[in-house]
Amino acid sequence: MARIICAGLGPGDPDLISVRSDRIIRAGRNIAYFRKAGRRGQARQIVEGMLHPDAVEWAMEYPVTTELPFNSREYNDILARFYDDWAERLAQMPGEVVVLCEGDPFFYGSFMHLYTRLLGRVEMDVVPGITGMTGCWNATGVPITWGDDVMTVLMATLPEADLVHHMAQADALVIMKTGRNLPKVRRALQAVGRLDAAWLVERGTMPQQRVMKLADLQDADTPYFAIVLVHGQGRRPEIAE
Amino acid sequence: MARIICAGLGPGDPDLISVRSDRIIRAGRNIAYFRKAGRRGQARQIVEGMLHPDAVEWAMEYPVTTELPFNSREYNDILARFYDDWAERLAQMPGEVVVLCEGDPFFYGSFMHLYTRLLGRVEMDVVPGITGMTGCWNATGVPITWGDDVMTVLMATLPEADLVHHMAQADALVIMKTGRNLPKVRRALQAVGRLDAAWLVERGTMPQQRVMKLADLQDADTPYFAIVLVHGQGRRPEIAE
Repeated sequence: MARIICAGLGPGDPDLISVRSDRIIRAGRNIAYFRKAGRRGQARQIVEGMLHPDAVEWAMEYPVTTELPFNSREYNDILARFYDDWAERLAQMPGEVVVLCEGDPFFYGSFMHLYTRLLGRVEMDVVPGITGMTGCWNATGVPITWGDDVMTVLMATLPEADLVHHMAQADALVIMKTGRNLPKVRRALQAVGRLDAAWLVERGTMPQQRVMKLADLQDADTPYFAIVLVHGQGRRPEIAE
Repeated sequence: MARIICAGLGPGDPDLISVRSDRIIRAGRNIAYFRKAGRRGQARQIVEGMLHPDAVEWAMEYPVTTELPFNSREYNDILARFYDDWAERLAQMPGEVVVLCEGDPFFYGSFMHLYTRLLGRVEMDVVPGITGMTGCWNATGVPITWGDDVMTVLMATLPEADLVHHMAQADALVIMKTGRNLPKVRRALQAVGRLDAAWLVERGTMPQQRVMKLADLQDADTPYFAIVLVHGQGRRPEIAE
């Protein structure tokens, strides 16, 4: 029976991989990872120089779906078939397969689609990782939450009214999957009076890391792999002067 | 000048410490950590067997404040003085000090109180860690967020009405600092119809880990170091049968 180990990779710096994932990745003889067709892939990039010389690599390339709306039946079916196929292939492999997963595998990760398909059919082990957002708030050098701050994580793909609604309720905010949704995120933050407190972190913990106030971003600039953060300002003990 | 490195420890399993934190902890000659007076301390427990034989340990013991309301002036002043004193002591140390911090140091961590006091005065480096909540949702074996799920993190110390308000808005929930607030958390989850979907994880990723449905918890049972989770059920591609 196949054994599948999903190794969480953390936010990007290979030095931030857990001791357990690091050991599993270096020993793995079958290494699988998702990537966009025609790209090297972020997960593969993170483990550069770590793989065993005899390791066989399995690039699971997402089907190209750019022209389809992400909530269409067709988009759903193409992706479902892609995950069905790879779940089947991994289940058929003799011995152990290590699946690489950026961040933490159970936090908005693609591995979850294989995991739910294979649960009960093969042996599986998931090694948690430092989430991308944790790497990003660390990169700002400012703590994200204090005292009893409420923190909310939002996908920038949500409708603008939903973003505004949720942004108004929480003390600390994390907004992921920004990409071309960034103008919408800016408008929503502006609407709740929090644009000036927002930071943008691109490629957090990676060599090309960029950290800036969101308000300073030029319109023409469309950052890649970026997370928007608003830090909480909760209770902290200080001596009154 | 002193140099302070805060090493994030992750959720409890020493194998889930990052490669960088692991290296820094094993090499450290001055190791500082917070703990309750009279206890071994969770942070110290995690690194058992890892410290250098010549390492000098600095236990920063929280002042006893059990009889004071946490929002009183007196409580604030006692804690502020405690952090002021330790910030001063660490700043005076010759050479490097490693401060251990459970979870991720910038996510509701005690180190933040030293960090803000010492910023600009000494050299500091913070190594992120896997948050406790990440370890806990991993322990349930169920992904926490899918698609465009909204996730909210709440402290159980919040007033019950605030808990109810926030619990009603998010898809995935993480409730921390439960302890004696657990009956309140249960009532709030019941009020929004989510008690049956809630899990309780005690000592996630540690040897005495316990994972159960919150509804199954007996009233007399008061778990220690527990996090309550409600998993998101967001969009995922499946073939319709």
